[in-house]
Amino acid sequence: VPDLPVSFQNVLDAAARLDGVANRTPVMTSRTVNARLNAELFFKCENYQRAGAFKFRGAYNVLSQLDEAQRARGVLTYSSGNHAQATALASRLLGIQATIVMPNDAPLVKLEATRSYGAEVVLYDREETTREALARKMADAHGYEIVPPYDDPRIIAGQGTAALELFEDVAPLDLLVVCCGGGGLLSGSAISAKNLAPDCTVIGVEPENADDATRSFHTSTLHTVHNPDTIADGARTPSLGRYTFPIVLSLVDDMVTVSDEALVRTMRLVWERMKMVVEPTGVLGATAVLENTIDVTGKRAGILISGGNIDLERACSLFAGQRSKRKGQSG
Amino acid sequence: VPDLPVSFQNVLDAAARLDGVANRTPVMTSRTVNARLNAELFFKCENYQRAGAFKFRGAYNVLSQLDEAQRARGVLTYSSGNHAQATALASRLLGIQATIVMPNDAPLVKLEATRSYGAEVVLYDREETTREALARKMADAHGYEIVPPYDDPRIIAGQGTAALELFEDVAPLDLLVVCCGGGGLLSGSAISAKNLAPDCTVIGVEPENADDATRSFHTSTLHTVHNPDTIADGARTPSLGRYTFPIVLSLVDDMVTVSDEALVRTMRLVWERMKMVVEPTGVLGATAVLENTIDVTGKRAGILISGGNIDLERACSLFAGQRSKRKGQSG
Repeated sequence: VPDLPVSFQNVLDAAARLDGVANRTPVMTSRTVNARLNAELFFKCENYQRAGAFKFRGAYNVLSQLDEAQRARGVLTYSSGNHAQATALASRLLGIQATIVMPNDAPLVKLEATRSYGAEVVLYDREETTREALARKMADAHGYEIVPPYDDPRIIAGQGTAALELFEDVAPLDLLVVCCGGGGLLSGSAISAKNLAPDCTVIGVEPENADDATRSFHTSTLHTVHNPDTIADGARTPSLGRYTFPIVLSLVDDMVTVSDEALVRTMRLVWERMKMVVEPTGVLGATAVLENTIDVTGKRAGILISGGNIDLERACSLFAGQRSKRKGQSG
Repeated sequence: VPDLPVSFQNVLDAAARLDGVANRTPVMTSRTVNARLNAELFFKCENYQRAGAFKFRGAYNVLSQLDEAQRARGVLTYSSGNHAQATALASRLLGIQATIVMPNDAPLVKLEATRSYGAEVVLYDREETTREALARKMADAHGYEIVPPYDDPRIIAGQGTAALELFEDVAPLDLLVVCCGGGGLLSGSAISAKNLAPDCTVIGVEPENADDATRSFHTSTLHTVHNPDTIADGARTPSLGRYTFPIVLSLVDDMVTVSDEALVRTMRLVWERMKMVVEPTGVLGATAVLENTIDVTGKRAGILISGGNIDLERACSLFAGQRSKRKGQSG
């Protein structure tokens, strides 16, 4: 393992901070899916994490390390949703005032949940400003500590604890499949995997229309996307970061993409057969496996389900769109 | 504990037969719900049971006790859904041919799942014949062993294993809340509860429009309903049975009812906040608690979630109906 900005020891330290605070999420299996693919799949279900997604791990790992003066000034973050809720909840648990900068088109369920955790929400227009610029301006004015959504060694170390638990529970694994937005979960997972199981292949998965990390990985040059059109809102991030890009390049074995239509098919299967509410971004990894973008035949594969925060109305609209498309094809 | 047709030893024997075959389903908790109710709730999640509902426990307990001649002739059952899937799956596992008599208005997801397990499905019209009459006729003609959906000591003993596991995992409990259709799960749960924790209060929950068991319980006289209008299709059973009625009368402490509107509110909360797909019948118990029909303040309460088999289109239609009703009230 090369010299990187986040060590496996950082992940272990994060796990100690999260012990008894974060949920140790269940690992679910499906006989139906295993039989269909002739494989053994282990779904690490971060939709059952506090605030509904893995993001709580990283956010709490940052906030619990702030000193008294930083805590007193408060924190600020920018997020399309899950990191916002996670930061709001972690802040409340630690008695820190949180300000969250969110796009004004964020899913309503995420907006409401963030406010319900006691955070102050500041909305912005994606077309008028970038969230980073607004966040920086507000942080400078008020002395807030910024809690970045992914590109921070403490965040990456926190996110790595999910894969750590998965290996503790079901090792050995031949394969670990992880969704990728800004690369925080993928980086942390790869650090845990390569330290615990050097022979385990780690694959990142992005939406087709937000394939910046996949292109960056395959060309070793940082690519970006701008407001990509995908239902996987957690993967609409513009690019990998200063910390996540080198980690992904060093430790990840491959990157692949899946279509939005395939994401909805997987959501339906996971909701109907596995009885779990998962969001589009949450099934990126599962989709690459279930649609045979990644061949798992005869293998033991771990799949991270990243989160389950979605408006029921939004999900129902996605399922209805899938049905009308099916009917259009058959008629 | 009085002399009853099913003993706690029968439940323990069933648990031994189910060991390694049925899923030991998870017990889920929600900090949000606990904080709102000032209670500790433990949801025993039979939506994660094989075939998506607790019914597998009873069906497998019956089928695994049949002798060679009975197995060779095959089995038959009648069910609106979950017991059908459970019997089909248990039959396939044991190499027994199953014939399932289902109403022609059964949910599509249940019909397809039953067929996918290799069972032969025979549809009937609820208005033209009763399922019992048709089943009896077919069983007589072909020598099939009938596997009743609830009113059978072996079924009741099998269903009692869910509460047994719940007590093993999270005892002590002050309260156990269980949905009631024909009373198989409620009877089995009460047997486990009263033997393991005599002071634990056991409460059964029915839909308002299918309150036959509640009326039977409060009057000590068997009441029936005919095709009641409720979204909780698993509780549309006409009455308690020859075995379940005396057990419910002897061991259950109270019976209450909840409205269909309340069931949809609870489904939304369980789907959105707990990230679990549950069917209307599955949330009968949870609804009585969440809507304060049963007071759980300061208590440790176990709640059986009976199943998660519902068409997504059907669920979405229920959620959409709830929204339009809300808007109508506020406007």
